[in-house]
Amino acid sequence: MTGEMTEGKGPVIGVFDSGFGGLTVLRALLRRIPHAQYAFLGDTARLPYGSKSRRTIARYAAESAQFLVNEQGAEFLVIACNTASALALDAIQEAVPVPVLGVIEPGAASARAASRTGDALVIATDATVQSHAYAAACRARGLRALEKACPLLVPLVEEGWTQHPVTAEVFRIYLQELLQQAASEGMCPDTLVLGCTHYPLLRPLIAQAVPPEIRVIDSAEATAETAARLFATPVSKSGSHAGQIRCFATDSVEKFERLGSRFLEQPVGRVDLIDLGG
Amino acid sequence: MTGEMTEGKGPVIGVFDSGFGGLTVLRALLRRIPHAQYAFLGDTARLPYGSKSRRTIARYAAESAQFLVNEQGAEFLVIACNTASALALDAIQEAVPVPVLGVIEPGAASARAASRTGDALVIATDATVQSHAYAAACRARGLRALEKACPLLVPLVEEGWTQHPVTAEVFRIYLQELLQQAASEGMCPDTLVLGCTHYPLLRPLIAQAVPPEIRVIDSAEATAETAARLFATPVSKSGSHAGQIRCFATDSVEKFERLGSRFLEQPVGRVDLIDLGG
Repeated sequence: MTGEMTEGKGPVIGVFDSGFGGLTVLRALLRRIPHAQYAFLGDTARLPYGSKSRRTIARYAAESAQFLVNEQGAEFLVIACNTASALALDAIQEAVPVPVLGVIEPGAASARAASRTGDALVIATDATVQSHAYAAACRARGLRALEKACPLLVPLVEEGWTQHPVTAEVFRIYLQELLQQAASEGMCPDTLVLGCTHYPLLRPLIAQAVPPEIRVIDSAEATAETAARLFATPVSKSGSHAGQIRCFATDSVEKFERLGSRFLEQPVGRVDLIDLGG
Repeated sequence: MTGEMTEGKGPVIGVFDSGFGGLTVLRALLRRIPHAQYAFLGDTARLPYGSKSRRTIARYAAESAQFLVNEQGAEFLVIACNTASALALDAIQEAVPVPVLGVIEPGAASARAASRTGDALVIATDATVQSHAYAAACRARGLRALEKACPLLVPLVEEGWTQHPVTAEVFRIYLQELLQQAASEGMCPDTLVLGCTHYPLLRPLIAQAVPPEIRVIDSAEATAETAARLFATPVSKSGSHAGQIRCFATDSVEKFERLGSRFLEQPVGRVDLIDLGG
């Protein structure tokens, strides 16, 4: 398949996730770099990465990155997976000879730019919170971050309850616990980072629930902005080519095809099954 | 490690799950066959099985079964995983020379014994419902079964919200949809099968929500009853040895150790990490 995607006009951008949640990052990329060609790989056979060791995650992510670069001709890679960004970015960069961008640094940078008080909140999955990657990236920028795992939000999104009263109640409970903890630690947070690729689908519901003084930062948007700055090559004169998308998964494409279009906000089309082994 | 567990008095029973939910089956077994020795394996590195192909699940489950028999000396195996029971019971039985019992047949048999109308409801995970293994096992006994996937219940249990108003509301919504569908198909269900190893933790909440004419059947309990009939060897005169339990996991024992005691209703103790490859 080598080079199949390099015949078009725009750059070839590889986007990698352990599942299909990273399609929200691809959606944001499509808006920022519409003329690019995209190869999206969801390593669905081996998800969730969150419960696995750093070494295992690094191996899986490196293999996935090599598929996107060597087989699909990706010239840039976006790691649209918080766990892989947190634990394996170095390993991925070592495995491929193209620039690699994760979601955590752009999210933290965007929070830093938005915050006046210097205190931020981060909501994410268990695995991302346990890695404390957001807190570290924020701290490196002089921003204090309080992280909270919100494990029910991903299944609620996957159930399609993105505007459901139950989801609003669950988010209210998580937010209340987070704000109480922040207050007890003397923090004045004015920024909330959505540190999971599923959460952008809850953005309207989240925006209604958070106090007006807190600004919501979407890591997917922040990553796409950074990618546009780093990776976007000049568009040719005829430059309005619509972005071409090819999606790949390592197992069970059914859920990917069924739910993917909700995340991408357009049909994902056919998802090709590939085998990366073990 | 071969034979390590065979020095005690009771039979050695291997219990296998893709995760730690099967500890509810182990708990039921401990009550029915208290003098046995138990080796529990959660294949946590490769969960969830639900999104994987039948061939992959069969390979994983067979490897796990061989560990329990060859390394831990199990004389009987209980497959406390609905997905593996649905898709890989034959493959497991071929892989090991000891009797193997899954959770689906006992659950269906118990529903058949309980039902007067001949109509049953089954709630389970997406993967179990998609396999239609409960419907097939019920049909083979002349019982009509309507299955419904309830994907939010597992994460709600894992969040510890087993008595939470949000969980009650989610279950009410699922049950209402299920009863409406049953009515529209002309069914008069009088039995509800809990077809997932996490659901026994919701039993008090479920019992409060279901109409009084519907009897709740717990596959874990039904499986333990069947195991007691099939596997329990006569207890020696001094036969009140407390069951010995050893737990193994293939990755990340942290969540297992943290949540496991809730499922087992006693401490799981130390969980040993083992490597099955892949």
